[in-house]
Amino acid sequence: MTRVSHLGIAVRDLEKAVEVYKIILGCEPVTIEHVSDQKVRVAIFRPAGEESAAIELICPDPDNKSIQAFLENRGEGMHHLSLHVDDVASRLDTLKQKGYRLIDEKPRPGAEGKKIAFVHPKSTGGVLLELEQD
Amino acid sequence: MTRVSHLGIAVRDLEKAVEVYKIILGCEPVTIEHVSDQKVRVAIFRPAGEESAAIELICPDPDNKSIQAFLENRGEGMHHLSLHVDDVASRLDTLKQKGYRLIDEKPRPGAEGKKIAFVHPKSTGGVLLELEQD
Repeated sequence: MTRVSHLGIAVRDLEKAVEVYKIILGCEPVTIEHVSDQKVRVAIFRPAGEESAAIELICPDPDNKSIQAFLENRGEGMHHLSLHVDDVASRLDTLKQKGYRLIDEKPRPGAEGKKIAFVHPKSTGGVLLELEQD
Repeated sequence: MTRVSHLGIAVRDLEKAVEVYKIILGCEPVTIEHVSDQKVRVAIFRPAGEESAAIELICPDPDNKSIQAFLENRGEGMHHLSLHVDDVASRLDTLKQKGYRLIDEKPRPGAEGKKIAFVHPKSTGGVLLELEQD
């Protein structure tokens, strides 16, 4: 089944953004951690529990060129939409056959043992789309 | 309980975007309709059912200045995040007391008999935030 896994929001100051979203969402983050291979610090809020859509605040490391450029060009804001799917490889195949522009041609390892792949915003109405699978 | 209600994605061509998201989400939209008082046509996808986060494609009418300006300035992409809360008025009060910048000081009627209010992106890490209540 496909469902919204999380919405990634790029921020400049993680601690400040956590305080802001604690009030908005009415809950504490379930984790604040550094994901070294993605060069980001993240704070994850799950206001409606484990299986519901999460809010992920993302603060790039100084050497994370991609998200630093996003902040420079567009400012803080919604950065990517992540969808949980049963089979990332199969979904990528379908999208590729239909002519969608992929950032990752094959699934690659993400955090927490997940398989992930990104689809280019040019093919999704301007949305940087992440597909993920447990 | 607070949960993600939907993610609004602004698009220029609704029919084209619906075809794109049918493949991405692996399902048909549950509705495509014109919301005359908001001057938009919307297509709503609920890939994981009624209570889970929805994807809402939004195509502004020609005289919808706000979303036309968004498309002009930023192009197609994620436009707003909508959170379902138990009590919009109470959440607005809390945010106001904490100094958040509100677009709507009080709840106003939305589609489907809902109460809605918007919070300004300046106070939310760049995210246009909608609060909604059934």
